[in-house]
Amino acid sequence: MSSRLSVRGSQSAAPGRFFRSRWVNPPERVEEMDPAELAPGFRAAGVACGLKDGGSTDLGLLTCEGDASSALLLTRNAAAAAPVRVCREECDPAAIRGAVVNSGNANAATGEQGYADALAMRDAAAEALEIAPRAVAVAETGTIGVPLAIDAVRRGITEAAGALSSGGGEDFARAITTTDRGPKRCTLRAGGITVSAQAKGAGMIEPGLATMLCFVQTDAAVDDPAGVLRVAVDRSFEQITVDGQMSTNDTVLLQATGASGERLPEGLLDALLLQLALEIVADGEGATRVARVAVEEAASVSEADRAARAIANSPLVKTALYGRDPNWGRVAQAAGMALAGEDLAELGPAQIDADELASDSAEAELGIRLGRGEASAAVYFSDLSPAYVELNSAYAS
Amino acid sequence: MSSRLSVRGSQSAAPGRFFRSRWVNPPERVEEMDPAELAPGFRAAGVACGLKDGGSTDLGLLTCEGDASSALLLTRNAAAAAPVRVCREECDPAAIRGAVVNSGNANAATGEQGYADALAMRDAAAEALEIAPRAVAVAETGTIGVPLAIDAVRRGITEAAGALSSGGGEDFARAITTTDRGPKRCTLRAGGITVSAQAKGAGMIEPGLATMLCFVQTDAAVDDPAGVLRVAVDRSFEQITVDGQMSTNDTVLLQATGASGERLPEGLLDALLLQLALEIVADGEGATRVARVAVEEAASVSEADRAARAIANSPLVKTALYGRDPNWGRVAQAAGMALAGEDLAELGPAQIDADELASDSAEAELGIRLGRGEASAAVYFSDLSPAYVELNSAYAS
Repeated sequence: MSSRLSVRGSQSAAPGRFFRSRWVNPPERVEEMDPAELAPGFRAAGVACGLKDGGSTDLGLLTCEGDASSALLLTRNAAAAAPVRVCREECDPAAIRGAVVNSGNANAATGEQGYADALAMRDAAAEALEIAPRAVAVAETGTIGVPLAIDAVRRGITEAAGALSSGGGEDFARAITTTDRGPKRCTLRAGGITVSAQAKGAGMIEPGLATMLCFVQTDAAVDDPAGVLRVAVDRSFEQITVDGQMSTNDTVLLQATGASGERLPEGLLDALLLQLALEIVADGEGATRVARVAVEEAASVSEADRAARAIANSPLVKTALYGRDPNWGRVAQAAGMALAGEDLAELGPAQIDADELASDSAEAELGIRLGRGEASAAVYFSDLSPAYVELNSAYAS
Repeated sequence: MSSRLSVRGSQSAAPGRFFRSRWVNPPERVEEMDPAELAPGFRAAGVACGLKDGGSTDLGLLTCEGDASSALLLTRNAAAAAPVRVCREECDPAAIRGAVVNSGNANAATGEQGYADALAMRDAAAEALEIAPRAVAVAETGTIGVPLAIDAVRRGITEAAGALSSGGGEDFARAITTTDRGPKRCTLRAGGITVSAQAKGAGMIEPGLATMLCFVQTDAAVDDPAGVLRVAVDRSFEQITVDGQMSTNDTVLLQATGASGERLPEGLLDALLLQLALEIVADGEGATRVARVAVEEAASVSEADRAARAIANSPLVKTALYGRDPNWGRVAQAAGMALAGEDLAELGPAQIDADELASDSAEAELGIRLGRGEASAAVYFSDLSPAYVELNSAYAS
């Protein structure tokens, strides 16, 4: 199973209305709090610095008191944006205390000036937060190929630094959205620890790119943040697809202070990230339904994953999901394409569960058994509606 | 460069209104003939046997006098249809004299009965044509997962055998179409040889699958039909994409009698198949425009091909093509995804030609220079319009 995000350094997680998917199984006794309230020790703000039209908030700042262990996952796209390059080259991924994020400009495909601007943005945040530059991560999302208005960003950072608050989670969550229908965030308590998280992502409309950003804060202790985050992301963000497109800007940051003296409850981070991931899928451009396809009896996990992704990214399966057409033949064809050169002679309707394509459920469960072994994998995906095409063809640069 | 079609055994090729794409360069002095007239020595027919509603022709029969050297390319989809399996296991790909084709039923995912039916169809054609069963290829296209009405097919074969004619090319071409806007065929003369060809393919609407079928007949001499066909298909059908979906039924058959005593003019088969391939792209479901993306300065041909396919299959690039949005950022993002883990830091507007996305031309030329080496590759693709989604979500099985 190849990963779209590569790990950089380390920690996180608790339910209620937040855990609403049939596919998410949070641990017991998780309490849902006001999502504006961050995990203890963290402060955040969101302000408008003018990158977005209409005065919407577009700059987010996040910091924590004292040291944190952290982990940073960054897109593996070869045309990675300037902020991703800065994080790779100029940050200590295991010791990130602060983060600065803008929405409205991805600062991608902006060359040397873009890199210099992302670095200046990071340095300005470090100065405003009074922490070491290498302890500050930078993330951006929005239009690509457009020079960053760095002076506006600097003014925004100054303003945000003055507005930092332990109740700033909601403002931060809103400041990092682009075409999202709404903010994606939660604050959860479980077993003496608190975890807060903010994410954005919704396919792509802006001149360019879908971007998935996610920030997770906790006062739990996490021994191996990079390992924990890698596993949780492999089970969540790595298993979703809206349109099969890998962004230039994807970034996930986990910060854990350990101040609570308690450990993360087993399964909490996995459940938290999976719910956020499913919200991103449901928020896919023009999406009306979400599906999970489970591939079983594969010869290897990688084979199962390949088949699941082929099914999830098939425009034929996605339009069948939209049109409520229980078209198992399209599932078979996509699996066969993924296993090109192999032989799936026995594959027929008895091996394929596609009835829920036609159900009224907003979450459809599909399955296919390849009869080749014991391995399995699952991928979550959105449908393909006429609105997707309209949204993505309407923009004129 | 991996191939979607695997070669099975051997030959072919001549211009006019047929060669109408800017991207096709036929050899000089090629004369376009009535496409109903097959290459000398070949006869064909198309009849209606009841697989399609409304009495449309749906069964094609093709044969040649005496021996032919031939080559047969079949889909590598692991869920290959019964006729593909029969061709693999029960035919001599280098010595195919006859072919039987139905449209309306793909006979895919139909299990053992499907295989028995495809074999029976092949045997019935061999008997009607009075040639050895192993010298007859069988192809099918249409709905999947539906048992083949073999008795109707048998009656159709008998009727078609009685209707075989050297002027049956047009009927044969029409009998093999499914959702095509019209038949795709030509008869060309060049340097003393004649080549005729019939193809079908148009994305996918029927319960399931896109299928590309192509039959080429010539009285030219072709020494290595399998090699010649492999090269020509690698430059044509392997370089096109409508929606990235590999069919369960793709089949290409080249037959060469050598009766003219002349050789195929250099480049004729390549040009012929590329023009047919472009017609399939232009006939993609809901397609309004065709584009060619050339990836240059790649480190290897396989890298160039991977990037070209990622761009051609990106729903973002395809919707930009539909919406006439010169969105070079989407081209950069797709190339970066194809090269995940590498570094394309320098990629910007200077390396990307995307202006023709916004042109009025029905054929848009795009380019990207990766700056990593000397290799190049190109892929042809259609746009993604709201009609594609409407067509593919409207069917209810």
